[in-house]
Amino acid sequence: MPNFDVASTAPLHPLARQALLSALDEGWADPARLYRDARHARMLLDAARESVAADLGVRPDEISFTASGTQANHLAVLGLLAGNHRKGRHLVHSAVEHSSVLHAAERHEADGGSVSAAPVDATGRVRLDAFEAAIGSPGTALACLQSANHEVGTVQPVTEAAELCAAAGVPLFVDAAQSIAWTRVDGPWSALAASAHKWGGPAGVGVLAIRKGVRYRPPFPADEREGGRVPGFVNVPAIVAAAVALRAARQEATEADPRLRALVDLLRARIPALVPDVAILGDAERRLPHLLTFSCLYVDGESLLGALDRAGFAVSSGSSCTSSTLTPSHVLAAMGALTEGNVRVSLGRDATREQVEEFLAVLPEAVASVRAHLMPAAASRSPQEVTVIDVLGKLCPIPVIELAKEFVNVPIGGLIAVLADDEAAAIDIPAWCHMREQEYEGRAPASEYLPGAHGTAYLVRRVD
Amino acid sequence: MPNFDVASTAPLHPLARQALLSALDEGWADPARLYRDARHARMLLDAARESVAADLGVRPDEISFTASGTQANHLAVLGLLAGNHRKGRHLVHSAVEHSSVLHAAERHEADGGSVSAAPVDATGRVRLDAFEAAIGSPGTALACLQSANHEVGTVQPVTEAAELCAAAGVPLFVDAAQSIAWTRVDGPWSALAASAHKWGGPAGVGVLAIRKGVRYRPPFPADEREGGRVPGFVNVPAIVAAAVALRAARQEATEADPRLRALVDLLRARIPALVPDVAILGDAERRLPHLLTFSCLYVDGESLLGALDRAGFAVSSGSSCTSSTLTPSHVLAAMGALTEGNVRVSLGRDATREQVEEFLAVLPEAVASVRAHLMPAAASRSPQEVTVIDVLGKLCPIPVIELAKEFVNVPIGGLIAVLADDEAAAIDIPAWCHMREQEYEGRAPASEYLPGAHGTAYLVRRVD
Repeated sequence: MPNFDVASTAPLHPLARQALLSALDEGWADPARLYRDARHARMLLDAARESVAADLGVRPDEISFTASGTQANHLAVLGLLAGNHRKGRHLVHSAVEHSSVLHAAERHEADGGSVSAAPVDATGRVRLDAFEAAIGSPGTALACLQSANHEVGTVQPVTEAAELCAAAGVPLFVDAAQSIAWTRVDGPWSALAASAHKWGGPAGVGVLAIRKGVRYRPPFPADEREGGRVPGFVNVPAIVAAAVALRAARQEATEADPRLRALVDLLRARIPALVPDVAILGDAERRLPHLLTFSCLYVDGESLLGALDRAGFAVSSGSSCTSSTLTPSHVLAAMGALTEGNVRVSLGRDATREQVEEFLAVLPEAVASVRAHLMPAAASRSPQEVTVIDVLGKLCPIPVIELAKEFVNVPIGGLIAVLADDEAAAIDIPAWCHMREQEYEGRAPASEYLPGAHGTAYLVRRVD
Repeated sequence: MPNFDVASTAPLHPLARQALLSALDEGWADPARLYRDARHARMLLDAARESVAADLGVRPDEISFTASGTQANHLAVLGLLAGNHRKGRHLVHSAVEHSSVLHAAERHEADGGSVSAAPVDATGRVRLDAFEAAIGSPGTALACLQSANHEVGTVQPVTEAAELCAAAGVPLFVDAAQSIAWTRVDGPWSALAASAHKWGGPAGVGVLAIRKGVRYRPPFPADEREGGRVPGFVNVPAIVAAAVALRAARQEATEADPRLRALVDLLRARIPALVPDVAILGDAERRLPHLLTFSCLYVDGESLLGALDRAGFAVSSGSSCTSSTLTPSHVLAAMGALTEGNVRVSLGRDATREQVEEFLAVLPEAVASVRAHLMPAAASRSPQEVTVIDVLGKLCPIPVIELAKEFVNVPIGGLIAVLADDEAAAIDIPAWCHMREQEYEGRAPASEYLPGAHGTAYLVRRVD
């Protein structure tokens, strides 16, 4: 089964697997102890730290190993805020950071801090002018910017952001989880985090780099391990394997980057021609080499992933609008992009042209099968001055599907009021209008169209 | 090299190693995703959860896997306090809990909570009357009691403590890291934590069991994983291996418990006969089967570990009085036990009688070599009414060594004032008096014996 979801987790690199096996034998002991096996574990740990430091372009004593990328992000955000509390309690992050950064920000806000989310453009790239304005607010103690977006692959202007932060005297934390397998992060950033299972290392290893002179205070209970930054037993075998995997990923990147970039270009070019009503998201150029995201109108992401799974492809969806949380992806929302029928394709280093062609061969039928199920041919009905579509209580993608069904029955110039209370409708109905070149006229209270109704009326004018 | 330090970390069990290898192939994917490999990982995770739950005697949905025992302890202490904040902000723990529990307690205190440490007897066993009185304080939200002590092996009266807590309406958290490889923890406890690398599983896996109906609120940033209790990518291969190792450890316990218990009995009986001025710590009966701790007068633990390492034995020291922290073990201090020259022997399942005999053969020479280095024959000097020993600024074990050197020159009935400012002296000088059957007369300001001196005078009367 071709795994086109390496951005969730990559299989263990063969060299990392070998390293893990030998480190389970040679490096199992507690590196803090005072006997031979312990010294052996400590030497392996030191060597792994030096290797990762070299690949990140920092000093070994600037590196702490964590238990996950999530833990590294939580520690970085809250530890840098605690260490820089004299500057103030204002945190700036881009609107499209990973959820673990947002969870830490929410915790900061719940504890009385203030948080600003810098907006992004339609490709998901942070608006540097807004970012600069936000870090200029009095009391800004920390800014966060990912190196590349995990849902749409857009590369962020981290070097420029780091220079703006340096000029403003604000430390910058970079979540580099999605890009560090490909390249270093340049610029005067203060701290950086990543996750080994995203670069072909084992699960259970994150890395937190904090440059010398940057103020940090442990935000959670701590002990003396990993420079006092990360409590708990140090997992030497997994760290050794992680270091080996990062080195291998970097060495292979020179060959893999252009090859996967070309495969993604093929997907970007062909999908819109093969699948009607599809939006390719993200930036065509400034992007991760291996990642592509698109959204399909009139499809729910979960059903589409199921259809692709049955066709033999493992992919993921950035949008969770039909999953347990019932909220659309914050990344796609911040971009103003369609959240319906969202699919993220992230190619492994071993992805082939044949696999990509096969994916393109099965995708149209997968989309069509879900659409046929969700959107049977609409019954004809007579036009009215205002067509009211009541989808109150219905969740994404139903509001847009109902809009599309009714739309064909509305005369040119006619107004449609979609009464909805699902959050995703606020993003998806304007996005649908934009894609179909119809006019979105804004919102009104639903009660104006249905007496006593709660929720929002989204007003769409048919223009052709 | 015989590893007599499995209480720090145990080597990976051979069955766990096999399970890890196959789970790296079969369970590497993100169990939260919607494709075949992900479902496979999820099934392996579910099976591991059921296995661990059965071994702990809880329901599978009461189990969350964490990244370490330390993380499980931090989450348990602070999450149960947060969940039970309506009861109040008073935390009770035994004075001999693992440092990770104490670190969480310190964090609670720094955040404005109150903490009581219930005292222990000379074997390290918590005094249930004091524990009961402490949990009876108004506003007690949580009590913590380890199942068995990690430094001296004393088994705690957890079942009785759980019943007292249940009667008082106070949840009890049990740190079961040291005992769970041997047996379940009985009684109406509320939450329990443990660490896989202590039971022969891989590093990077802890377990947190919280019984249904117990109030818990995530104390740190959280996500939806592991029941909303443990954020970060779930390390399925390591969890699978951990579950296999726990099952294997329990199945082997029936045979290993009496065998290792007999070997520890042998050490307990023979060490005092082979090594002069040694104190065997802990409880002879109510103890872990595989663990023994002793302290040697006139020896520093670090040098003794080095001598034993050179003789081929990996052991550890509960006392860190000569390590970087320069504070004596809080466990030994709470027991009023000698902290000098402390050695913890914890036997692996594969330990043999021959290895134990060999250890007994090399121990006397190892202790003697360190003593010879630290305590050369004292020069004779004339007795005085009060013999003043100035060891201000000197660290453990120097104060007791100087006391022993001067002692031989003091007439029967003579008084010695040891002027010291090292924290460990407050424990070790009374302990020395107790061992040597001399009279400890208490403390006075050092300035009474040396004008202008800071620090404390410890007063010792020579009685024979």
